[in-house]
Amino acid sequence: MKSLIECIPNYSEGRNPEVYEKITDCFRGKEGVKLLDYQVDPNHNRLVITVIGEKEPLKEAVLKSCKVAVELIDLNKHEGQHPRMGAVDVIPFCPCRNVSLEEVKKLAEEVGKGLGELGVPVFMYEESARKENRKNLAEIRKGQFEGMAEKVKDLDNWSADYGPVGEIHPTAGVTAVGARETLIAFNVNLNSNDLKAAKAIAKKVRYSSGGYRYIKAMGVNLDDKGIVQVSMNLVNYKGTSVYTAYEAVKTEAKRYGITVKECEIVGLLPMEALMDCASYYLQLTDFDYEKQVMESRLLEE
Amino acid sequence: MKSLIECIPNYSEGRNPEVYEKITDCFRGKEGVKLLDYQVDPNHNRLVITVIGEKEPLKEAVLKSCKVAVELIDLNKHEGQHPRMGAVDVIPFCPCRNVSLEEVKKLAEEVGKGLGELGVPVFMYEESARKENRKNLAEIRKGQFEGMAEKVKDLDNWSADYGPVGEIHPTAGVTAVGARETLIAFNVNLNSNDLKAAKAIAKKVRYSSGGYRYIKAMGVNLDDKGIVQVSMNLVNYKGTSVYTAYEAVKTEAKRYGITVKECEIVGLLPMEALMDCASYYLQLTDFDYEKQVMESRLLEE
Repeated sequence: MKSLIECIPNYSEGRNPEVYEKITDCFRGKEGVKLLDYQVDPNHNRLVITVIGEKEPLKEAVLKSCKVAVELIDLNKHEGQHPRMGAVDVIPFCPCRNVSLEEVKKLAEEVGKGLGELGVPVFMYEESARKENRKNLAEIRKGQFEGMAEKVKDLDNWSADYGPVGEIHPTAGVTAVGARETLIAFNVNLNSNDLKAAKAIAKKVRYSSGGYRYIKAMGVNLDDKGIVQVSMNLVNYKGTSVYTAYEAVKTEAKRYGITVKECEIVGLLPMEALMDCASYYLQLTDFDYEKQVMESRLLEE
Repeated sequence: MKSLIECIPNYSEGRNPEVYEKITDCFRGKEGVKLLDYQVDPNHNRLVITVIGEKEPLKEAVLKSCKVAVELIDLNKHEGQHPRMGAVDVIPFCPCRNVSLEEVKKLAEEVGKGLGELGVPVFMYEESARKENRKNLAEIRKGQFEGMAEKVKDLDNWSADYGPVGEIHPTAGVTAVGARETLIAFNVNLNSNDLKAAKAIAKKVRYSSGGYRYIKAMGVNLDDKGIVQVSMNLVNYKGTSVYTAYEAVKTEAKRYGITVKECEIVGLLPMEALMDCASYYLQLTDFDYEKQVMESRLLEE
């Protein structure tokens, strides 16, 4: 079976099509790499690419895109609403299919090394972090590009994992690279307009206040629909399944006599996450989606 | 999105590897065609291939395999436990992904025509049947190879849809070709050893005695496990969903205080059938598995 890794690199250019198209081109028409999505935001002045691929071709494409971005983007001239610290701002890698987080971490290291060789200081973050202060992207990015030259002089805390130490790339700043589990945006709409209840349900199911380990959640109003929603990020569907999150919300909602109206998955997710749900609800035993789902077999090597 | 069609051709050779491998080779290493499975049964003296592919390459591969089988198999010398009437005995085509039954029927016609041009009388069956007596394969096959030369002389009832009329191919007999929905083998194991209950549940859920239109079911003993099973064939998962069959069995089992122990899907099924289940149980709205499941995107054209 083919191994597939997801990558969602962020670049600090969302206004000049000559630049962001040239970056995106690095992922087009490449054997072993599939561009799934790219979002250009002129207000953020930012390009976010979503791509899946096999390890080696993905590595090559990402590094090529970094080379283009480092050459063409000058952070000294960059303006935009989104916090940023580098021409290539951040490169997260996630397991998609038939690949362990450990293997994805290895790929992240190789990309970090390659980017360092382009003269860009690289901080390995999330699951790839070597130090506690590098787990959280916001902490690395604090001070943004403008403050970064000063920040990296603090060698005890902010010496780069790859690339130059004690200084930044003059035009491309610094970059965060790391591995993490893929994130699923899963929203549960309630047959209710009780925002207080939605917030209370979110609080019960999310990790930070005693809920499931890999659920982040908040209660929000959907003004256009006149209902409330429990909006969730599932940060590790292997640890906390999509159906677990769904059932947890349903169970908490009972306290208020509230039922689930509908759910939505925003954006992309790996096939495994939904096969896991089908398998749970149908009580499937000995089911192997890689072998038994016809289309899956097209991913055999 | 790519269109994928499933084909499960049956050939009357399950003993001589030189022959059945040469037939199977027609589906190996072909662009646009993926051999999923092939089962050789020496007792039945029969080869059953499962393959998916895009329309044109699949048609070519199937016709090539027919040519090989017609050349190499002589039904006059064939012995085996399984009923058969041709070197290529039967060729069912089923929609797998992003293709209508109508399009699959067109493909079946083209293959029927091609096989007719090889000198083999072809009966279009199942959804492709032109006459009532050709819907059911068993009825076409009655008399088997040995009786077929006589049977086709009845031109009113048994004139072939393609190929020679009133006579059979001297060594390759006749073939049935047709389109149908893909079949899912779905078994529900019960926490019970009450065979009477399993049979009663099967009777309630199956079409023939008042149940769902596309469910075939029977109650059986699983001696090795000491429990009973409702064994089902879901003959059109678009009409009657997998979760519908599961819930129907569960609901009927309540009458006897029996719960579901586990379920199994035997063999292959299209991704859509399980996405439909995940979607139902998670109450997903506006979910498009062809766009949102990462691996699906690899099937874009």
